[in-house]
Amino acid sequence: MTVFKTTYRVTWSDTDAAQVVHHSNYFRLFERTEEEFYEHLGLSFNSIIERGYWLPRIEAFCQYKTPSRFGDVLEISLSVKEIKEKTIKYRFVVKKKDTDVLVAEGYVVVATADKKIRKAINIPSEIVEKLKAFQNS
Amino acid sequence: MTVFKTTYRVTWSDTDAAQVVHHSNYFRLFERTEEEFYEHLGLSFNSIIERGYWLPRIEAFCQYKTPSRFGDVLEISLSVKEIKEKTIKYRFVVKKKDTDVLVAEGYVVVATADKKIRKAINIPSEIVEKLKAFQNS
Amino acid sequence: MTVFKTTYRVTWSDTDAAQVVHHSNYFRLFERTEEEFYEHLGLSFNSIIERGYWLPRIEAFCQYKTPSRFGDVLEISLSVKEIKEKTIKYRFVVKKKDTDVLVAEGYVVVATADKKIRKAINIPSEIVEKLKAFQNS
Amino acid sequence: MTVFKTTYRVTWSDTDAAQVVHHSNYFRLFERTEEEFYEHLGLSFNSIIERGYWLPRIEAFCQYKTPSRFGDVLEISLSVKEIKEKTIKYRFVVKKKDTDVLVAEGYVVVATADKKIRKAINIPSEIVEKLKAFQNS
Repeated sequence: MTVFKTTYRVTWSDTDAAQVVHHSNYFRLFERTEEEFYEHLGLSFNSIIERGYWLPRIEAFCQYKTPSRFGDVLEISLSVKEIKEKTIKYRFVVKKKDTDVLVAEGYVVVATADKKIRKAINIPSEIVEKLKAFQNS
Repeated sequence: MTVFKTTYRVTWSDTDAAQVVHHSNYFRLFERTEEEFYEHLGLSFNSIIERGYWLPRIEAFCQYKTPSRFGDVLEISLSVKEIKEKTIKYRFVVKKKDTDVLVAEGYVVVATADKKIRKAINIPSEIVEKLKAFQNS
Repeated sequence: MTVFKTTYRVTWSDTDAAQVVHHSNYFRLFERTEEEFYEHLGLSFNSIIERGYWLPRIEAFCQYKTPSRFGDVLEISLSVKEIKEKTIKYRFVVKKKDTDVLVAEGYVVVATADKKIRKAINIPSEIVEKLKAFQNS
Repeated sequence: MTVFKTTYRVTWSDTDAAQVVHHSNYFRLFERTEEEFYEHLGLSFNSIIERGYWLPRIEAFCQYKTPSRFGDVLEISLSVKEIKEKTIKYRFVVKKKDTDVLVAEGYVVVATADKKIRKAINIPSEIVEKLKAFQNS
């Protein structure tokens, strides 16, 4: 099982009046992790966009386990749960880096769409090939 | 089946470079709807917070059906799917107000917690009573 | 002196760990007010965008006077401070609606640009005409 | 003249429908830079907060020079422009890291306040001492 990991330090504007990271910001954190994963794979989002593709989100889910706070350093793990013809399901796990405490976990289902026709298309094979190494069911 | 409805006009900062509402912002929209629902019930979030309670999110889920764009007027419906001892599950449906096109639907599971002891507590009975009118399974 | 006024209720995701509206969100509030002002004038942002124009911000400034909190109802006033060939300067004043306490004030300088050539152009005369009624120096 | 520098890669949720970083997000970027500057100085925001202080923003200003886009790597420079008894003025310059093109520049005036009495206090001398090395007028 191959997992991509990255870290993120919680910034002040991530927090809300409960003095914890606002729940919606975990979805931004998932997306940022996906971007870094693509960079790691040598698949830049920008090159995908320039070819006229777009990566709309189909579903997003998160379970919140332990609040994280301003200044926390989080470790986010990404793995590929499912590759279908037109969609990819990523799984994300967020932990506090120093204590390994589970903060949140969730998944996001992403499609590949053609920007002009605004319809889902098959995921380009070069992407599928690179993602397979990170797949685990 | 009783449903609470409100409207929201998409502002520029809700959008992303795909020229649609960023997927994380639907969770902010759900929360805003929940706040207006509480106001409608005469249960202000602030009075709850002042009594030392806090309403952490336990789970959040959204399915994205049709993109919405800058300037769109959205109609958001909230219903209560489940009331447990310590959690409430809200269901949200987002449509374009003028065409009734389904934009997104999802749910959020909210707990009631005591701010001092940072533990889930039973949902106060006055809240349960008011929510029951909006419950449908 | 003619001023455009609108109201806004502070939502949970506007706040930060100091339990006040995050300072960057006042700029989002200014922009939202500008959008409603355009609607009020019968000048939709969308129609401007569809004609191939774009309204980039050149400068933004805000002074923070009194924190605002979750649930506060704010009254935002917009007036036009200056109309130049290629830029408009809006002034914004944010108060608490119930007490009239000054929360923040600032300004934003907006240009009109052609999306294709990505250069500033003269503000279309129909916009200038409508803005003049709200100008005061 | 001593300047603190850091880098930041533009993430998808930073952008808006003009396909550039939303103007309000530069203020979040300034704040993130200030946080990293404090870490660099060995002055954690959290330790300041734990001592009962709070760092409210008094003024914020930004001039936008060149749009930045998704995936851009930005270099942000922070310098200290002014240290008064109760306020610090930081200056920020944002450039594209690869081309050195100026993206934005601005300043933020920050006060130190006592959280309990909610009033500005003199900046603690240990902070003043460390900031002086980065001051230039």
